[in-house]
Amino acid sequence: MKIHTLTIVGVGLIGGSIGLAARRRGLAEQVLGVGRQWDSLETARQLGLVDDHSLDLTSAVCGADLVIFCTPVNRIVQQVLDAAPHCRPGTLITDAGSTKALIVRELEGCLPADVHFVGSHPLAGSEKRGHEAAEANLFQDRLTVVTPTVHTDPTALGQTCDFWQALGCRVRTLSPEEHDRALALTSHLPHLVAAAMAGILPAELYELTATGFRDTTRIAAGDPALWTAIFQQNREAVLQALQLLDSRLEEFQRALAADDTMALDSLLTQAKQVRDDLGN
Amino acid sequence: MKIHTLTIVGVGLIGGSIGLAARRRGLAEQVLGVGRQWDSLETARQLGLVDDHSLDLTSAVCGADLVIFCTPVNRIVQQVLDAAPHCRPGTLITDAGSTKALIVRELEGCLPADVHFVGSHPLAGSEKRGHEAAEANLFQDRLTVVTPTVHTDPTALGQTCDFWQALGCRVRTLSPEEHDRALALTSHLPHLVAAAMAGILPAELYELTATGFRDTTRIAAGDPALWTAIFQQNREAVLQALQLLDSRLEEFQRALAADDTMALDSLLTQAKQVRDDLGN
Repeated sequence: MKIHTLTIVGVGLIGGSIGLAARRRGLAEQVLGVGRQWDSLETARQLGLVDDHSLDLTSAVCGADLVIFCTPVNRIVQQVLDAAPHCRPGTLITDAGSTKALIVRELEGCLPADVHFVGSHPLAGSEKRGHEAAEANLFQDRLTVVTPTVHTDPTALGQTCDFWQALGCRVRTLSPEEHDRALALTSHLPHLVAAAMAGILPAELYELTATGFRDTTRIAAGDPALWTAIFQQNREAVLQALQLLDSRLEEFQRALAADDTMALDSLLTQAKQVRDDLGN
Repeated sequence: MKIHTLTIVGVGLIGGSIGLAARRRGLAEQVLGVGRQWDSLETARQLGLVDDHSLDLTSAVCGADLVIFCTPVNRIVQQVLDAAPHCRPGTLITDAGSTKALIVRELEGCLPADVHFVGSHPLAGSEKRGHEAAEANLFQDRLTVVTPTVHTDPTALGQTCDFWQALGCRVRTLSPEEHDRALALTSHLPHLVAAAMAGILPAELYELTATGFRDTTRIAAGDPALWTAIFQQNREAVLQALQLLDSRLEEFQRALAADDTMALDSLLTQAKQVRDDLGN
């Protein structure tokens, strides 16, 4: 895969890491960063994350072969709609958003006929944010979910998969809805629960936390605005995941209230089995 | 602080790390390990965790200045009651159990007049177990909670605090009940929630987990029998902590169901503040 110009919209942790990885791997002749703050883009350039940058989305996409949106999930649709009419025929547009169904649904059928959007979500992230946290190896051996629909252009789909593989990812395709239901359980629910657990800790107990509390709540340090948007875009699946967790917590509650050793041990043993199977 | 013979009952992760730290720091002339399996004790000796070992609790405590019980919380009381009559006058007995109220209550007034028990809990651990995981620095800069009551001998209390400080810990005293209420929230609840979240993950979604899920559920790999005993010994406080979490999860549920951006953002912002304040 050889790209002449790769345009990255949103040069934060994800966008910056894509730029760095693409440049290190010689994946594109030019990597162009688009953002809202000149200073921040200039720092990204100095850090080697992009070759050049622009504050103007429409002019920055007009020479691109591939445009990737690494902006908050609630901004992607409008930005793609703004950018697409300025893209050359054959331009591939993808994204790195943590939710997919709403984004894919709202873009389908709304782009120029020869500009293709394919949804993506690299399962790589951190509670850190900003291009200062960018890493060239952020995607190495991580999974990227690519979310085609029946209307997705097969060539564009293939190019999207090639792009992520060229960055070091494994790729798996799921429908946007399958993606969102899965991620509700594997990512959005853990974030919600970490936030709930951190949120109820009174200050006088901070000193009495150890590795367990710190590990379980680490992601609660994530950006509230980004996560509010993720939860809102995946409301129904997150509510279902929360219900599933509630039922399991109720089983624990009943076992505890009844001082039922067998039930507690069986719940903990099954959980350990899953966690051991998951690996590190 | 200088100990002639330190007897460690239960040479696993905690007991083994205490032995290693005590030997490295020259804290005791002899470190004696007590366990149930000769092979395992012999390996611990070869790893340098203890100087010598014994399968017989009563003979192993009769020459000790300090005996520390690093066994599962549901075995500590009976073992202390078995050992104490064989201790010399002036022997200090402590433990490293994750729960304190039941243990301290059941031992108070039941030991020979000149043998003193003081409850301890070093907030250092891991989802790993066994002496293979022992580390000399496990306690370095960690907090140990020491749990005196009004009946605790002041000299024994001072020696217990000295002992943990000599291993590298900071020490804080709390009543056994304060300890258990605090740890229900900072340790037992996170374990329960991690187990619930791991437990509801279907095998087909393993591949779709990333750092967030893995961090939040890591402790669910802990030993089910150890944790069943911890939950049972601290049932009421854990049930209260679970109720507190339930209320917070309900707030998230309501905010999601109502698509209330402000409420979601405010819950996540408050949680981030706590997590940022906690540090790494």
